[in-house]
Amino acid sequence: MSSATFDPIIGREFIGRVRELARHSDSTTNYTRTYLTPAHQDASGRIAQWMREAGMAVRVDAVGSVLGRYEAAAPGAKTLLMGSHFDSVRNGGAFDGVLGILAPIACVAELHRRGERIAVSIEIAAFADEEGARFQTSFLASRALVHGSGAIGELLGRRDAEGIPLAEAMRAAGLDPSREFAGLDPATLAAYVEVHIEQGPMLLNEDRALGVVTSIAAGTRHLVKVRGEAGHAGTVPMPMRHDALAAAAEMVLAIESRCSAGGSLVGTVGILEVKDGTGNVIPGEVRFTADIRAADEETLRDASRDVFARCEAIAKRRGVAIEVAKTHAVRSAPCAGWLQDRIAASIERVIPGAPARRLSSGAGHDAMILAEVTDVGMMFVRCGAGGVSHNPAETVSEDDAALAIAALLDFLRHFDR
Amino acid sequence: MSSATFDPIIGREFIGRVRELARHSDSTTNYTRTYLTPAHQDASGRIAQWMREAGMAVRVDAVGSVLGRYEAAAPGAKTLLMGSHFDSVRNGGAFDGVLGILAPIACVAELHRRGERIAVSIEIAAFADEEGARFQTSFLASRALVHGSGAIGELLGRRDAEGIPLAEAMRAAGLDPSREFAGLDPATLAAYVEVHIEQGPMLLNEDRALGVVTSIAAGTRHLVKVRGEAGHAGTVPMPMRHDALAAAAEMVLAIESRCSAGGSLVGTVGILEVKDGTGNVIPGEVRFTADIRAADEETLRDASRDVFARCEAIAKRRGVAIEVAKTHAVRSAPCAGWLQDRIAASIERVIPGAPARRLSSGAGHDAMILAEVTDVGMMFVRCGAGGVSHNPAETVSEDDAALAIAALLDFLRHFDR
Repeated sequence: MSSATFDPIIGREFIGRVRELARHSDSTTNYTRTYLTPAHQDASGRIAQWMREAGMAVRVDAVGSVLGRYEAAAPGAKTLLMGSHFDSVRNGGAFDGVLGILAPIACVAELHRRGERIAVSIEIAAFADEEGARFQTSFLASRALVHGSGAIGELLGRRDAEGIPLAEAMRAAGLDPSREFAGLDPATLAAYVEVHIEQGPMLLNEDRALGVVTSIAAGTRHLVKVRGEAGHAGTVPMPMRHDALAAAAEMVLAIESRCSAGGSLVGTVGILEVKDGTGNVIPGEVRFTADIRAADEETLRDASRDVFARCEAIAKRRGVAIEVAKTHAVRSAPCAGWLQDRIAASIERVIPGAPARRLSSGAGHDAMILAEVTDVGMMFVRCGAGGVSHNPAETVSEDDAALAIAALLDFLRHFDR
Repeated sequence: MSSATFDPIIGREFIGRVRELARHSDSTTNYTRTYLTPAHQDASGRIAQWMREAGMAVRVDAVGSVLGRYEAAAPGAKTLLMGSHFDSVRNGGAFDGVLGILAPIACVAELHRRGERIAVSIEIAAFADEEGARFQTSFLASRALVHGSGAIGELLGRRDAEGIPLAEAMRAAGLDPSREFAGLDPATLAAYVEVHIEQGPMLLNEDRALGVVTSIAAGTRHLVKVRGEAGHAGTVPMPMRHDALAAAAEMVLAIESRCSAGGSLVGTVGILEVKDGTGNVIPGEVRFTADIRAADEETLRDASRDVFARCEAIAKRRGVAIEVAKTHAVRSAPCAGWLQDRIAASIERVIPGAPARRLSSGAGHDAMILAEVTDVGMMFVRCGAGGVSHNPAETVSEDDAALAIAALLDFLRHFDR
């Protein structure tokens, strides 16, 4: 495969690998791979094997990320870091994250097969935990790589749904949670580039296979606790109730309503739990998450302020207590102009005839964390099935996969020339 | 203690037993005792021991209920069945159910101590599962006693939150789920009488220790499944979403609103679960329970019809699917007039000066099931702490407990004379 050549066989093989990796699942009925489970460790081993077959030197870092290295043509070159995550949400889609690991591996395999090396060393990071579905630890692995052990120390006591602390899960997976390690040295990095499924309908609606990301949206996640008064479902008259779930339901609708103001703003309650929920008991305590995102910080700030003011007003009116804690915040991350231009040029060489589509990302990506220390660029691949993601229907076509690999390989061959 | 005598020492001992029994809990931090757990089996053993100490012959039935028998003065007499349940809701109150087991045991202990027997045989049923918190099996134990093994066969495959089937939990507790057994022979029964904490604020507000129940409210429980479309919380624009949780939240509020029409009608969503809930995923599926009750069948039927019509309309408007399944229904159960009068007479002898308060029960009780085969009567005991129940704050005073035991003993001594 020469530069800017589309090879359908490559696409078929690639989709085969994605499907094979998805079989390493915590669940027997769907694709769920959460941090440090047996399925997660099996996937780690499979990725490491594919990296080695592609001629890379492989190591596993302190939090379980798999890092493959392919040296530059000449010594002393900087490192171009590429990657994405291999954990998933529960009942998720097989391409989310994995695409950004397997596409660069496919490129390096091609370089290796032809005995080519490029102007920079290539390092591929398969991040062990980005979704954070098990311990509510979004971006744990990229934070650890970028900032070192200090970035994860406070997370080690977090427990999964079965009460297992993160530190214990790490030890069970052969990792040492007490190990101290440094973060990346930015001086060694040329850039970070991430390929990812779009997870939205834009490229699909415009009939384009690939896109260039301009920036990643700002987002916050809050945990909201509502405390009312438990009571017997048959004996407490409706006007005397302080039902934590009814209050939370009103808050869920307030979040939905305020975040439907238009533009890039979105708001989602993804988790809602009734503590000690029983059919014949008025709920005494409810916890839920509120995920709010917008392309710019100001829209996000205004929406968050309004949302929680409305929640406070609902709580006051209903005589329930409310606690709101911010659990997660990412600033909007612009992609570097020079990387956008180079990715666009590669897409245009592989798919000639029109300028590459540039679009912003509503989803967060490991690139947001890497943007704290280096320039980042992202390429989006068209999301089939109506643009759904975090869903078993999530899909990428063989042709689109082959185009993505061809464009990325073109980008690598032109990098720093 | 002679008939109609109030003895504060009896009240203190009684509350001591209630508190001791509450220590047999599934939880280390609160009182939760669900069907067939180790704590549940320990409580069963303790109750059996107290029954034996009170001079009763004890057996455990096929579903784990403990039955103590104290023979009549003369052979061939009918049996007066008394009892209530010793399972609890999660994080419940110590008196709910247990009061109606320990109060008749205290009465029989007193009869036994004095060598008295009454006109009927006394049987006390400590029902093993009424709340049904573990397997969603309300009234399992009283249904089994009344109707035999046929009443529970279809429940044996139900699983608890950890996936353990009911049949397996029974075997682990030394019971044989395949055993066939007959229900009660109504011809042997004189009546069923249940003493219970009111679980509401009525007696408290009127400064009365005891009350006579006139009827038990009708109730239904439904399981509602809402299926929307999972998707990425950052990338699906708000107008394109089919969020199962937002739809369910609107349904929760519709249930609350319609059931606030006044009178005896109440409606409660006690359980709500987001399937595969993750902070950054639009919920694809939500399940919740809807518990609706009213003193009369017609009010219940009208409210249920309206509630689910509203839920269907919400689902249609939001483009989500809804399934509604009735999981539980109890008809309103009137208490027999002659038993009401005898219980009232006993209360008036113990607390002279005013006619006994008669009130209906919004909560369901094992008496509803027994009402299918025999006349039932119920005595309510004042609920402290504002009338809260199914809540750790649930309480009964020592004096009120002593008055309840005195009134029940008076009732027994006057029974069938």
